[in-house]
Amino acid sequence: MNYSQLLSEIGQLNASLHQKDFLLTWDKTENELRLVLLAAEALKCLHGQNISAQCFETGLAVSQFRDNSTRTRFSFASASNLLGLAVQDLDEGKSQIAHGETVRETSNMISFLTEIIGIRDDMFLGAGHTYMLEVAAALDDGFKNGVLPQRPGIVNLQCDVDHPTQSMADLCWLKEHFGSLEALRGKKIAMTWAYSPSYGKPLSVPQGIIGLMTRFGMNVALAHPEGYDLIPDVVQVAKKNAAASGGQFTEGTSMDEAFKDADIVYPKSWASYQVMGRRTELLRKNDKDGLKALEKECLGQNAHFKDWECTEAKMKLTQGGKALYMHCLPADITGVSCKEGEVQDSVFERYRIETYKEAGYKPFVIAAMMLTNRMQNPLAVLENLMKRKQPRIFS
Amino acid sequence: MNYSQLLSEIGQLNASLHQKDFLLTWDKTENELRLVLLAAEALKCLHGQNISAQCFETGLAVSQFRDNSTRTRFSFASASNLLGLAVQDLDEGKSQIAHGETVRETSNMISFLTEIIGIRDDMFLGAGHTYMLEVAAALDDGFKNGVLPQRPGIVNLQCDVDHPTQSMADLCWLKEHFGSLEALRGKKIAMTWAYSPSYGKPLSVPQGIIGLMTRFGMNVALAHPEGYDLIPDVVQVAKKNAAASGGQFTEGTSMDEAFKDADIVYPKSWASYQVMGRRTELLRKNDKDGLKALEKECLGQNAHFKDWECTEAKMKLTQGGKALYMHCLPADITGVSCKEGEVQDSVFERYRIETYKEAGYKPFVIAAMMLTNRMQNPLAVLENLMKRKQPRIFS
Amino acid sequence: MNYSQLLSEIGQLNASLHQKDFLLTWDKTENELRLVLLAAEALKCLHGQNISAQCFETGLAVSQFRDNSTRTRFSFASASNLLGLAVQDLDEGKSQIAHGETVRETSNMISFLTEIIGIRDDMFLGAGHTYMLEVAAALDDGFKNGVLPQRPGIVNLQCDVDHPTQSMADLCWLKEHFGSLEALRGKKIAMTWAYSPSYGKPLSVPQGIIGLMTRFGMNVALAHPEGYDLIPDVVQVAKKNAAASGGQFTEGTSMDEAFKDADIVYPKSWASYQVMGRRTELLRKNDKDGLKALEKECLGQNAHFKDWECTEAKMKLTQGGKALYMHCLPADITGVSCKEGEVQDSVFERYRIETYKEAGYKPFVIAAMMLTNRMQNPLAVLENLMKRKQPRIFS
Repeated sequence: MNYSQLLSEIGQLNASLHQKDFLLTWDKTENELRLVLLAAEALKCLHGQNISAQCFETGLAVSQFRDNSTRTRFSFASASNLLGLAVQDLDEGKSQIAHGETVRETSNMISFLTEIIGIRDDMFLGAGHTYMLEVAAALDDGFKNGVLPQRPGIVNLQCDVDHPTQSMADLCWLKEHFGSLEALRGKKIAMTWAYSPSYGKPLSVPQGIIGLMTRFGMNVALAHPEGYDLIPDVVQVAKKNAAASGGQFTEGTSMDEAFKDADIVYPKSWASYQVMGRRTELLRKNDKDGLKALEKECLGQNAHFKDWECTEAKMKLTQGGKALYMHCLPADITGVSCKEGEVQDSVFERYRIETYKEAGYKPFVIAAMMLTNRMQNPLAVLENLMKRKQPRIFS
Repeated sequence: MNYSQLLSEIGQLNASLHQKDFLLTWDKTENELRLVLLAAEALKCLHGQNISAQCFETGLAVSQFRDNSTRTRFSFASASNLLGLAVQDLDEGKSQIAHGETVRETSNMISFLTEIIGIRDDMFLGAGHTYMLEVAAALDDGFKNGVLPQRPGIVNLQCDVDHPTQSMADLCWLKEHFGSLEALRGKKIAMTWAYSPSYGKPLSVPQGIIGLMTRFGMNVALAHPEGYDLIPDVVQVAKKNAAASGGQFTEGTSMDEAFKDADIVYPKSWASYQVMGRRTELLRKNDKDGLKALEKECLGQNAHFKDWECTEAKMKLTQGGKALYMHCLPADITGVSCKEGEVQDSVFERYRIETYKEAGYKPFVIAAMMLTNRMQNPLAVLENLMKRKQPRIFS
Repeated sequence: MNYSQLLSEIGQLNASLHQKDFLLTWDKTENELRLVLLAAEALKCLHGQNISAQCFETGLAVSQFRDNSTRTRFSFASASNLLGLAVQDLDEGKSQIAHGETVRETSNMISFLTEIIGIRDDMFLGAGHTYMLEVAAALDDGFKNGVLPQRPGIVNLQCDVDHPTQSMADLCWLKEHFGSLEALRGKKIAMTWAYSPSYGKPLSVPQGIIGLMTRFGMNVALAHPEGYDLIPDVVQVAKKNAAASGGQFTEGTSMDEAFKDADIVYPKSWASYQVMGRRTELLRKNDKDGLKALEKECLGQNAHFKDWECTEAKMKLTQGGKALYMHCLPADITGVSCKEGEVQDSVFERYRIETYKEAGYKPFVIAAMMLTNRMQNPLAVLENLMKRKQPRIFS
């Protein structure tokens, strides 16, 4: 789609995300999601044509990473910079932010000249999303009471429940790959567990995928070994979404079954809901021996499921043997980044460039979330950026 | 006051801070202080009207935090960004900067394209202010000898002696709250020690408050338990200021006495001058056992003064029972952030939003210090920014 | 030279560095090196005249420091900011980047909106330059396959082989000091080892100096105690360069011999090639005892050569007793930063300001490397920046 088509589609949506935090995709209407996808594509288009998308002369984008991140950190920094915001990282050091009171205060203290706050908080089950809501309430309170001249928007950079910047980037990529959102209708996507020699990986990616892809009439097949459940509430969300969108959602315990005739496969390791719950308690108690014991137990359990690997044989089960392989990266690649992992090296290598392109949408998706949050009329802004035609690189 | 009134007042001051480091408020004339207050208000006004205050196309603002900071770090970053400067943090790691020679060198090495250097150095009594003077001399030397194309300005982000960005933000807030600087004349402010379950808090906030508020004809009542003295030189400064400005300065050992009929109360914990001196020596020797013993001794001493809490009963002693409560934040709030602390929860909660507004002036005060340091004619710059009317947010 | 002379000289070079990584000076033609020198001078000239050199509205400059750095970090940040790029640091934490596969991936993941990647990797002999080539290949692959909308340029901020931003800044300084590159022809520069109470200093500075200064007809005298060899391949490069440029290159084991009649002296400590090889192995094995033993052995060995100090007596041997003293800083100054070091305090003090000026070219050299890498026609950009005459500081 060219730029004017994208803008024309945005105009038809009649959707607004102005001043709405982006925490969970299932809090958003279908048209709000479409708005983000189209705005991301429009921003990518501007960048590709060397047209500046800078729409903030000054303003801060605060990032708070309560877990390690390189990929999302760079995407957030790129998105902020693309729009003209300067990144300021909130490094909590040793948890000065411990209870509600101080979250309320800190949220205001970092926000006097801030437009966007991006938060990653995925370590503790039951905590990340709750924390973001707490920050949101604090910002509402500060803005209402005249403390803050603007109410910064919040972008969820991964919590315990959802990973919307990932799943929306994935959806952008699927839209590009299959030509349109409409083309995804009826397509089967296998979101499956996969073996990994590590443990404790968050649930937010698979949850994000089943929560989002069920919105667009896809046939979402979730599969994992027994005991590797996701948060039950999110599974319910996926079921409801599928029913509403005319799609399907199934949950099973066979990777082969999920892969059968799949158009897309997304094999990725995660810990089980129950394990993450136990881990959360141990982390909170800072019980190192307990954590070590749990890790050992879990790795032992994982080891029973080494056949949950995305091999060439498994790929043969998919639609024409040619399903699109997806991953949020980095993948555990057998013989490359580990001895035995989530995916066979030859499979990964065949789709490597595609997974990079998938990741390449993330900066633009985050920028789109920022733009639609801050601007009352993002369509007008996108139109005016094109009219302004300020070259991004001077020559 | 509206923007043109602010500018008109600036015009009448006939004051300049061009190329003058902002290290101590008592090094500045009254009109120089007024210049900063008015410039801060003008910048806040521009921001509130979505008018860009960016006056640097490029340039660095270097920050050096020799002690933890979130609040001031964000204020410094916000101020830099507001004017168009990019923040670059100097993280010394393990004290590469150890003696005079290397301070001289490093100060130049970080300054080739630097406009402002903000320094927090409040851990060692007798060291922080001295360090800033050393950096200043190194920059003078580099500029004079043609090493540096410009002589960066220094902003004290808290030293062992003063905390001017805090006290000036406090004064901005008092000006807003009481309507004018003139309205502060004769008002009683109680700067009192308060109990805290921690030890080693810097003296710079109370010192900054008594050093600044005595400039404007206020009645400043300093109170603390015996043994919790401030640096004697600064107390002398406060006495002289009060005499010169037609205000009052008293020092006592009763919180009740200080609170009596006060219009403003500022109860805040600090270590004593003597303790900070002993602590400095132990820190220098890296004597961990000594530090632990001193902490224990001090916490024991503190514990005798748990009644130095800003309770509802104490607030009743103040002018109409309604003194304005102030704090530099974060406060130790009884039952909220600690078991027993500086302030009763209901008192803090009643004034919480006010303390946040107080803090909200800090980014603009720092930006005003930067602007007045860098610009030969900050009034013209402020006029021209308004004429330029570049929207901060493009739409 | 004034700005138009600089631009006129650039025009006569007929050289381009567009899309060419800057890893080693000896990979570049003489005119390509001249292009960087002239562009650096032109950018310095713009800055001195308060004319903005910002030519990127948005875009990231990624830095990756695999070794400590303050000086180069600030130079890189200054250069990026001068051109309008925002710095984003890649902090690897605990070596997530372990093998080729992941370098390939990470290089792409950080590059979606990135213009320049600056890398310091000088700890491991045989690794740093290799790593940069690996990143380069990954970027080529990503760009060729449509993953990256642009192919970021790489600037070597010090590797195991060369330190081109240092040596080129040094050359800028020599050009200023002696009036022209032509004036350097026949001048003798003594690049000598010097005693230091530390060990393990990289070889890249002396290698960079002998590799670059031999390009311009200088008489380069390398001297070091026996056993303190540089990488043999680089010594070969220096020999070939000297032969080609009509200069001279000698290698000896006497500091006095090297200093004799020298116009320039560059006394600086380094570890020997063999020691760095052993150290690399031990670092790779994380063999702490082995490293400690090696350090002890090496310091013992160093101690035999305490007379390799740049004293007043040694300076007397040089051309008129007045050779220009150079250092990449920080120097180990006897009686100032250490008991016994590379240089006598009075010698250093006499040349201190000169060494600072030498360092002052680094931000502009890095900016010139960025500019010439990104711009198809850097001459036109420099012309147009002067025509645009956008003040860097608004007034």
